[in-house]
Amino acid sequence: MTIREDASIIMKAALQSAQPDVAVAKALSLLPENAGKTVLVACGKAAWQMSKAAEDFLGDRISDGVCITKYDHVMGEIPHVRCYEAGHPVVDENSINATRKAEELVADLKPEDLVVFLISGGGSALFEDPRIPLAELQDITKKLLACGADITEMNTLRKRLSNVKGGKFAKACAPAQVFSIVLSDIIGDPLDMIASGPAYPDSATAEDALRIVKKYQLDFSDEVMALLQEETPKHLDNVTTHITGSVKQLCTTAIAECEKLGYEPHFLTASMGCEAKEVGRFLAAIARDHQDDGKSIAYICGGETVVRLTGKGLGGRNQEIALAAAEGIDGLKDTLVFSLASDGTDGPTDATGGVVTGETAGQLRNKGILISDVLQNNDAYHALKEVDGLIITGPTGTNVNDISVLMIKK
Amino acid sequence: MTIREDASIIMKAALQSAQPDVAVAKALSLLPENAGKTVLVACGKAAWQMSKAAEDFLGDRISDGVCITKYDHVMGEIPHVRCYEAGHPVVDENSINATRKAEELVADLKPEDLVVFLISGGGSALFEDPRIPLAELQDITKKLLACGADITEMNTLRKRLSNVKGGKFAKACAPAQVFSIVLSDIIGDPLDMIASGPAYPDSATAEDALRIVKKYQLDFSDEVMALLQEETPKHLDNVTTHITGSVKQLCTTAIAECEKLGYEPHFLTASMGCEAKEVGRFLAAIARDHQDDGKSIAYICGGETVVRLTGKGLGGRNQEIALAAAEGIDGLKDTLVFSLASDGTDGPTDATGGVVTGETAGQLRNKGILISDVLQNNDAYHALKEVDGLIITGPTGTNVNDISVLMIKK
Repeated sequence: MTIREDASIIMKAALQSAQPDVAVAKALSLLPENAGKTVLVACGKAAWQMSKAAEDFLGDRISDGVCITKYDHVMGEIPHVRCYEAGHPVVDENSINATRKAEELVADLKPEDLVVFLISGGGSALFEDPRIPLAELQDITKKLLACGADITEMNTLRKRLSNVKGGKFAKACAPAQVFSIVLSDIIGDPLDMIASGPAYPDSATAEDALRIVKKYQLDFSDEVMALLQEETPKHLDNVTTHITGSVKQLCTTAIAECEKLGYEPHFLTASMGCEAKEVGRFLAAIARDHQDDGKSIAYICGGETVVRLTGKGLGGRNQEIALAAAEGIDGLKDTLVFSLASDGTDGPTDATGGVVTGETAGQLRNKGILISDVLQNNDAYHALKEVDGLIITGPTGTNVNDISVLMIKK
Repeated sequence: MTIREDASIIMKAALQSAQPDVAVAKALSLLPENAGKTVLVACGKAAWQMSKAAEDFLGDRISDGVCITKYDHVMGEIPHVRCYEAGHPVVDENSINATRKAEELVADLKPEDLVVFLISGGGSALFEDPRIPLAELQDITKKLLACGADITEMNTLRKRLSNVKGGKFAKACAPAQVFSIVLSDIIGDPLDMIASGPAYPDSATAEDALRIVKKYQLDFSDEVMALLQEETPKHLDNVTTHITGSVKQLCTTAIAECEKLGYEPHFLTASMGCEAKEVGRFLAAIARDHQDDGKSIAYICGGETVVRLTGKGLGGRNQEIALAAAEGIDGLKDTLVFSLASDGTDGPTDATGGVVTGETAGQLRNKGILISDVLQNNDAYHALKEVDGLIITGPTGTNVNDISVLMIKK
């Protein structure tokens, strides 16, 4: 088998292991009995799969439901659940309209009623009813993406500009109880950050929000600045939360699969948060100095990197990791790096990541493409496309961050 | 012993192992007999130690010599050798005056004469006779440092603006033979790059130089642009070269010392070239996910990182690595990261690196210092100084790049 075939096997196994179906059923087995009605609300990139799993488990116990996911992520009808598609990573009118359906659904519940709330990554954009005009919110989101703010910083600001984020949706569900199942896509599983924590007290303060504005020298309207200074709920007494899935699962499966294929696995981290292309360079540096180890080896890391925008090209953080690695492993034999997002979408592209070998840089050179220029222009997508280096899976049904693997085959 | 004491032992052993004395003597044992006179020229941060070792070995065989090193790096008189101190990292008048002494020394040699040429890192600034006014050259060097150009890119430009770099000094020595001993401070030991290759054919072309100008959008005078387009020597037939010392030696010693102290060592790479603070973040991410390994472990990497200037503070790449790591290992028990330059100088400071633990970030917070702000301002020196986090050794007598080590003690 080629190293590229080995890589495909590892990727598939890792993605399969991160599917939410079994995990959701397991969490729902803990759902308490209730005298009133049970409604379902789901948001995020894995909302459809999670809703489907919940419906399979709960059936007619669900009286009504709202599921909000990304475009092209609804895979069919689900009994009792109204499915909506909306904008991601930037909120759009459909996000707001669908979120208002969810707000209506929980508006007049009684203490004996129950809300099954299924949260996955992407919820920050998909589940939103903003307190400012949409155009202004979109503008703010774009500014935050462009300045390199991390997801924690972005959510700290966005939850103050929202009617549902930062614990406010759980407040809207009261006096009903909320049973929340979270498929984590943020390192360390900070519950107030995943999907901007619609059902979790906000740990960040107004002071934190202002510090972020200062850090990136952001220029906001007076109205926005006033909202940022309003404090979010710090206590919620009607919520039970179950966390499931995480990037560690991806890494653990990749490690096991590497071993099966004869690679000595070295687990580095499941909590990368650094700049994407620097991770690629670091993995390449490791590759250069382990060429003569005399055995097949693999280095595995997971997390969520950031991209610093310096150009206007097309790409995503995983594609940048792979392309930057390609430059560093140029000419190395049987050496491969892949990096992929577990949700099937890396940046605003139809690819979910990139895969490169020691031959990739040469193939690009032959086409007159210089990797340093491509990275400067954040245009990894088009370069990788030229050399069959894109990983395209379509929506995977899960969303538990990214995984990057360096492989050297002997 | 505390983890900090362990770290001190590892640092000392690594630096000791990179001393040039033994290596220079070993290379000189291969020096051919010659009928004429033997002169010595040495440049770089390790020039004094290398000259001293050569004098100890060759004694009266040396008829005359010129040694050029950094300020405060001359440790005493050496018989037969005139020692000069000059500017680094920015060339100054003393660099030029001393280099002209070396040019005079080799100006009228005969075919039977021999030049022992001792090269170490830092030579690019210390060994220079520019073809443009000094002020303009200094300005160009500052621009290159500020835009984040790596050392390879800097040297590609500088050797075209020089009378000695890029093989031109060896040309000046002809018809005498040049016996060159190189203490490598560039990853992969590219001989045309170390000290800008005064005695090695230049592998970079005028085309490469122009590409770098374009990449960083540098704005140079017409005169400079014309010089950049003049080609450098591509063949030299009067030079023999011996490479000695390298960052791998630092890493190998650190690995051995970690093992002696009971840490399971994991060698990552000796060819890091990525952004300094991202290396710190990556090491911290590794630390977070190996807290529960149940044994003492260490991760070792070497190389030469770069700093992207976004502020006007004081620091160096190793101090940035350490400080960025401090943020990521905040609160972790018995976890330490150190990073140091082997030459005793990290950036324009009196420190050679930084050492941080899981307690460092908290100590800084207590003093009202926010690491993210400090990194934004490139001011790691002052922050580390506040928490006893600077590594200060003074000139070490060697220069073989940097080493970074993550340690977790159980």
